[in-house]
Amino acid sequence: MARPSDTKIRIQATARELFREQGVQNTSLKQISDRLGITKPALYYHFSSREELVRSILQPVMDTLEAFVIGREPGEGRLLLEDYFDLIWRYREEISMVLHAPTVLAELEMVDRMWRWRKELTVLLLGPAPSDAARIRSTVALGGMADCVVEHADLPAQEVKAAAVEAALAALGTLGRATP
Amino acid sequence: MARPSDTKIRIQATARELFREQGVQNTSLKQISDRLGITKPALYYHFSSREELVRSILQPVMDTLEAFVIGREPGEGRLLLEDYFDLIWRYREEISMVLHAPTVLAELEMVDRMWRWRKELTVLLLGPAPSDAARIRSTVALGGMADCVVEHADLPAQEVKAAAVEAALAALGTLGRATP
Repeated sequence: MARPSDTKIRIQATARELFREQGVQNTSLKQISDRLGITKPALYYHFSSREELVRSILQPVMDTLEAFVIGREPGEGRLLLEDYFDLIWRYREEISMVLHAPTVLAELEMVDRMWRWRKELTVLLLGPAPSDAARIRSTVALGGMADCVVEHADLPAQEVKAAAVEAALAALGTLGRATP
Repeated sequence: MARPSDTKIRIQATARELFREQGVQNTSLKQISDRLGITKPALYYHFSSREELVRSILQPVMDTLEAFVIGREPGEGRLLLEDYFDLIWRYREEISMVLHAPTVLAELEMVDRMWRWRKELTVLLLGPAPSDAARIRSTVALGGMADCVVEHADLPAQEVKAAAVEAALAALGTLGRATP
């Protein structure tokens, strides 16, 4: 017999599959339990609502993203962008889940946390009081890289990383150069 | 008494308001007729479903976006990016509607049309057979600019345009230079 934690992990995996196929807002707990071949009460034992299930998937990812900016020094330039790429590549599915269902996830505060995270990254890149022009260039760099992990998910990660980091550094111009 | 076409326009305006506030997937025709203070049959007279209403808003925008790429010569570089910016700034609300509710709008084929449009823009920028690295740089440039019209919608358009176009050109590198 499977341990409870195994069932929990299988529920999350099936939920992710359905979210990817048809979106969070079109997926019910009933559909998840049906595909997994368990009863709805068996699913409810682990997750009392779709929101709780979504949160169980996204919470640890948001925690990891937030921990990433907390541990870093400003002025790293290229190194920061390289590590940022690795992070968004690894979690591209969850990030796209948050960005594609903002109104569904609004109550989970994930969208707010995602934007706050992006703002903290900008501070790391540009310092605490960047000009508007610097903020705009940073949006092109960071937003453009985020698009790459979705649009070029079929290419090798290293290839996407190399070209995306170069393009982002160029977009930042002198702003992206590491301070000595 | 208002002409039918006026009512139609008022329905679309109220729908856009509600879509913006709470998302397409959370908005019903009932909520739209309630806010507008008309009966549900009066709304049904103009739009038989939410999909038809959404399509009436997005179709002309997609037509305009597609016409934009059809009329242009390749190799314009900066000029293309400047006009691309004007276009996505003008239609930022509709573009964000498509990108934020992909599964709701899937049956309208708007998401597919949007990606196809982006691909045609890339061909205009880079020629018909770009390398993977060139496609990745172009994603940073075009995707990053699209993020700017949402993230910096509170700044003056000209200011956002100037910085976003410079950043995008830099991200493209030599690819973005106009051919003689």
